[in-house]
Amino acid sequence: MAGNSIGQFFRVTTFGESHGSAIGGIIDGVPPGLPLTTQDLQNDLNRRRPGSSRYTSQRSELDLVEILSGVFNGKTTGTSIGLFIKNTDQRSQDYEKIKDLYRPGHADYTYEKKYGFRDYRGGGRSSARETAVRVAAGAIAKKYLFNIKKIKIRGFLAQMGNIHCNFKDWEKVNDNPFFCSDTEQLSALDRLVNDLIKSGDSIGAKITIIASNIPIGLGEPVFDRLDADLAHALMSINAVKGIEIGDGFSAITKHGSEHRDEMTSNGFQSNNAGGILGGISNGQPIIAHIAVKPTSSITVPGNTITSKNEETQVITTGRHDPCIGLRVVPIAEAMIAIVLMDHLLRQRAQCGNP
Amino acid sequence: MAGNSIGQFFRVTTFGESHGSAIGGIIDGVPPGLPLTTQDLQNDLNRRRPGSSRYTSQRSELDLVEILSGVFNGKTTGTSIGLFIKNTDQRSQDYEKIKDLYRPGHADYTYEKKYGFRDYRGGGRSSARETAVRVAAGAIAKKYLFNIKKIKIRGFLAQMGNIHCNFKDWEKVNDNPFFCSDTEQLSALDRLVNDLIKSGDSIGAKITIIASNIPIGLGEPVFDRLDADLAHALMSINAVKGIEIGDGFSAITKHGSEHRDEMTSNGFQSNNAGGILGGISNGQPIIAHIAVKPTSSITVPGNTITSKNEETQVITTGRHDPCIGLRVVPIAEAMIAIVLMDHLLRQRAQCGNP
Amino acid sequence: MAGNSIGQFFRVTTFGESHGSAIGGIIDGVPPGLPLTTQDLQNDLNRRRPGSSRYTSQRSELDLVEILSGVFNGKTTGTSIGLFIKNTDQRSQDYEKIKDLYRPGHADYTYEKKYGFRDYRGGGRSSARETAVRVAAGAIAKKYLFNIKKIKIRGFLAQMGNIHCNFKDWEKVNDNPFFCSDTEQLSALDRLVNDLIKSGDSIGAKITIIASNIPIGLGEPVFDRLDADLAHALMSINAVKGIEIGDGFSAITKHGSEHRDEMTSNGFQSNNAGGILGGISNGQPIIAHIAVKPTSSITVPGNTITSKNEETQVITTGRHDPCIGLRVVPIAEAMIAIVLMDHLLRQRAQCGNP
Amino acid sequence: MAGNSIGQFFRVTTFGESHGSAIGGIIDGVPPGLPLTTQDLQNDLNRRRPGSSRYTSQRSELDLVEILSGVFNGKTTGTSIGLFIKNTDQRSQDYEKIKDLYRPGHADYTYEKKYGFRDYRGGGRSSARETAVRVAAGAIAKKYLFNIKKIKIRGFLAQMGNIHCNFKDWEKVNDNPFFCSDTEQLSALDRLVNDLIKSGDSIGAKITIIASNIPIGLGEPVFDRLDADLAHALMSINAVKGIEIGDGFSAITKHGSEHRDEMTSNGFQSNNAGGILGGISNGQPIIAHIAVKPTSSITVPGNTITSKNEETQVITTGRHDPCIGLRVVPIAEAMIAIVLMDHLLRQRAQCGNP
Repeated sequence: MAGNSIGQFFRVTTFGESHGSAIGGIIDGVPPGLPLTTQDLQNDLNRRRPGSSRYTSQRSELDLVEILSGVFNGKTTGTSIGLFIKNTDQRSQDYEKIKDLYRPGHADYTYEKKYGFRDYRGGGRSSARETAVRVAAGAIAKKYLFNIKKIKIRGFLAQMGNIHCNFKDWEKVNDNPFFCSDTEQLSALDRLVNDLIKSGDSIGAKITIIASNIPIGLGEPVFDRLDADLAHALMSINAVKGIEIGDGFSAITKHGSEHRDEMTSNGFQSNNAGGILGGISNGQPIIAHIAVKPTSSITVPGNTITSKNEETQVITTGRHDPCIGLRVVPIAEAMIAIVLMDHLLRQRAQCGNP
Repeated sequence: MAGNSIGQFFRVTTFGESHGSAIGGIIDGVPPGLPLTTQDLQNDLNRRRPGSSRYTSQRSELDLVEILSGVFNGKTTGTSIGLFIKNTDQRSQDYEKIKDLYRPGHADYTYEKKYGFRDYRGGGRSSARETAVRVAAGAIAKKYLFNIKKIKIRGFLAQMGNIHCNFKDWEKVNDNPFFCSDTEQLSALDRLVNDLIKSGDSIGAKITIIASNIPIGLGEPVFDRLDADLAHALMSINAVKGIEIGDGFSAITKHGSEHRDEMTSNGFQSNNAGGILGGISNGQPIIAHIAVKPTSSITVPGNTITSKNEETQVITTGRHDPCIGLRVVPIAEAMIAIVLMDHLLRQRAQCGNP
Repeated sequence: MAGNSIGQFFRVTTFGESHGSAIGGIIDGVPPGLPLTTQDLQNDLNRRRPGSSRYTSQRSELDLVEILSGVFNGKTTGTSIGLFIKNTDQRSQDYEKIKDLYRPGHADYTYEKKYGFRDYRGGGRSSARETAVRVAAGAIAKKYLFNIKKIKIRGFLAQMGNIHCNFKDWEKVNDNPFFCSDTEQLSALDRLVNDLIKSGDSIGAKITIIASNIPIGLGEPVFDRLDADLAHALMSINAVKGIEIGDGFSAITKHGSEHRDEMTSNGFQSNNAGGILGGISNGQPIIAHIAVKPTSSITVPGNTITSKNEETQVITTGRHDPCIGLRVVPIAEAMIAIVLMDHLLRQRAQCGNP
Repeated sequence: MAGNSIGQFFRVTTFGESHGSAIGGIIDGVPPGLPLTTQDLQNDLNRRRPGSSRYTSQRSELDLVEILSGVFNGKTTGTSIGLFIKNTDQRSQDYEKIKDLYRPGHADYTYEKKYGFRDYRGGGRSSARETAVRVAAGAIAKKYLFNIKKIKIRGFLAQMGNIHCNFKDWEKVNDNPFFCSDTEQLSALDRLVNDLIKSGDSIGAKITIIASNIPIGLGEPVFDRLDADLAHALMSINAVKGIEIGDGFSAITKHGSEHRDEMTSNGFQSNNAGGILGGISNGQPIIAHIAVKPTSSITVPGNTITSKNEETQVITTGRHDPCIGLRVVPIAEAMIAIVLMDHLLRQRAQCGNP
């Protein structure tokens, strides 16, 4: 039911399958008067798109976005914005051979059982292809948030397999195809991905997103807490299996006297909370970590069954990512932008600011 | 904006502050004909309520729930159910002394900045007191889910501080005030909590919830994935800082060949996915882990500021929990029940079953 | 599904049956800092309540409302407001005799077929008793709208049966139990109602509501037009069968050159549009007319069937209104206030004002 | 805020301006397995489109719809359906001269005041051009409703100016460009429209829509009554100023003994209620009447002001309709189909049928 929308006020609705003719979306609730061109969206789309480096899927989609409505004379009008991205590099024939079986770790089985049949071409709606529209929508939110409050939402690779990548500075992050700030780890990452390409396998990753210059007061009591809405948005990204806000799971072994962020007249003395108290932003940077599973589309043979419950093996020969986590960075940024945008408008509605 | 509701179809809306006259809620979308009495709700309310053991807050609330509407001749009518729980043990005077300062780790600061002023009595709406209504609402969902499909939703303490509690069997879990299945750890837990009470400090915890007998097909593509809605619901619980579905953060170091759950004609051979593929339940048990921070209400003095930005210290002398994680178990079960109930009705609407 | 809520941002959710123990609601999205007491709500509740004159139902409900949450030190806190009204004058035994038959013009038949059984006591949830909560919620909206923008929402009786009541001035409207501004018609109305009481019959009515001091810009393009949301809100009132905005059905015979409201530098020269253009308020008074059917609860015998499809007759001997339209005036005001409040907050979210 | 969506479960979201490059929408919540081709949508689009007869606007849009997603191998997949209609006959230069003034009766003034500026080309988003997407969405609902329950939703012209058109039979309605079942009135209608074209004026109309084979039980108590949602949907159509369900405004002068629909073992003896009791369908045909104002785009000069508040006159020389009511017939059918579809799915979710 209407599961293809997110947001109450800044509302993003999307459509499109991996191998359909196009994907797209409708962005509702954008304030009027925001300068907006396709170029504002294209930058993040390019960061996400496949084929941008040899470390990602070689599917070659230009992901050129068109704005079909809601912008006039270079500015948003306040009406709904239609976005349209043509699919140009579908190779549906790659998928004929998997149409009667369920790729392990994929949604083939659940879609078929839920709906009675499925669009088997590239996973149809379950493909991460739809995330391009999230990124385009997120870019609108990002631009507004930056314009109005200098809010920045930026992510980086914190870990791939056993390789930990420390955060150094933001300049480095977009200099390399790994979104890695820790340049000393670049060669290790390169080796790992090359090994995975050779072995036809894949690996998980941890991504960290930080949103800064956040106004105090975003988020609602009880169910629509900012952290709850962020968790929803991030967990809705394909392959995400875990979410932490602030110190997350490390809070399990901490004492209250250590975990609570004390305050002085200079403000908070730490940020274990990740920028959110009682579900409401406290003005500190919002910090979220997400766990991304290894992609299940690999050439290592796997046991599975057919739709007639016959046992078989599957080798996924399509074009896929050795570490899908790499491509999650701009998607996660976009989802956080969408949530912050929604809550900023909600806050303005109820409390008149910012 | 309308942040006090959860669910699209099975919709729970709540009200009430820690030290107001009552808390309550409205449960909408309940199918007609479900046998329902207050006793069905009271059982879980008793599992959550403070003062039920010496390990939890000594606030003494009976948490007796009244059903004000939506039930006639012992069965739900299909109309909205009004729930009402009187607050009986408010000691608002305890809070006079903190009305001008911000308790670290609490929502005092964010509520005041968001709304311009705050109900300082026990944290007002930000208090975990509101979770009693979640538990009552969840009990309705639990009963329906069990009646129709034998669905069970059960949680246990997986870790408190550095004490790991293995899962043995469900019988043990409700036998002790720790929701701990691992009876060998009971004395260690007892010691830890006693030490915390003495030192006036608190500790974090990890809770695991397992939902079994789940129909295949619950969850929607893209934004309203079952795991996304579960993450939202769980992260909306006070003090929760992390969520994992299935193997969660351990997926970071796994290979795709290892993580994907292979299938044979006997079904899935593992459950790293935690029962959800592509956002849709696959019929395996749904497994969620949550990290609960240590409660910030402790008697260890903490640095903070007043509303005039003067530095001061605070000792929280109210009645509080050394490990709030203990009381999260029935709340987390309730939140998962609410989400599953919502998605079961949504699935029925679109696909006609179950 | 969640049919007991209205509003996106200012959201009203209600519960309660005619003969349950209480009715009530939760009001979400109220801006913080609004001074609010039960007296603010009671005034309109008294205008709606039965038994307030000999022209309405003699059910004697004091309709004393309690505010259970969301107000602290006399001001709204920004969190959800719980409202509670005890039912005190239920006479459920009056309804035993109709429990197996369907009163014509009532919802007995449809509720039973929809839900499989029904709460037959006074119509259960289908009773106009629930409208008391609408009036209480509307009073909160009214107060906010007046405080912030001097918005006034006032209704009057425009017609009862064949008696047309011209609008003279607002002072007169609340001076008499008919909400009639046209004092020359008061004796005719009195005669008509007395005749109806004698004959045990009822009559329809037309109510007009005017909202003034409306900011320009309330309402959304396409589906959530202000007039569309008003139509929804007004048609959701029991017994309402028709809605007009501005000149309504009289537009059918008008020419465009006559109907369109021309403008000069002094503003609009007429208000055929009823204050709304393209779904958005234009700053003129919003004018709505509603048709209210005669109540079906009369002592004139009527043909009907039992739940076993046996033919029978029914005489409704409960306490009912000869012209339910009279009591619709404060309810319709409340519904319009709820919609305007919602749209004012929405407008502020997107466009930053008012 | 998200004002471009309608429906809870069957959810239609649209975008597009009169003179943008395209219009379109996303249809969410469609049950899987429904056979669907563009031809299913095109039939109703052709009934709505301008230029289809000399009685309507001569703008020549083919309104060819593309289905971009959600359909695979000829059947709906259960995922969101993207619809796309290219605009082909924009003549934006027609509108240069009105860009600084407000056409009376149009949304020029309100859009500009609400959003700070406006897309003045053909009214932008406020143009009835967007209704093409409603019609396409409604055609999906119509097909499903007919397939599952033989539900039919059909409208006709009941009145144009002072010409009353009685209903004779459905066969006649689509035989003529007036949607008029009363063939004796065709020449009078022809004369009236020709006169309007000559005089450059326009006229209002009354449209009646009847939905038959309706299952009992559609609609929710209190706010989401079926009639309330129908009123919302119908009033959201451009130019609609009044709504009646069943006998509507004629109920004002009726007695209860006359208005209530009595029942015998053969069912209801009349249908004054218009098929809805207590907000829930009773199995009788649903009857709605709507008042459509005369289009304000006429060549009769009208007084207005510029954005600098200077008085001026306007003659609307674009391509417009002498009686926009004619084109409302398929739009109103579509809106009713959307509402019924939504409620049918909601009813199935809660009550398990139909």
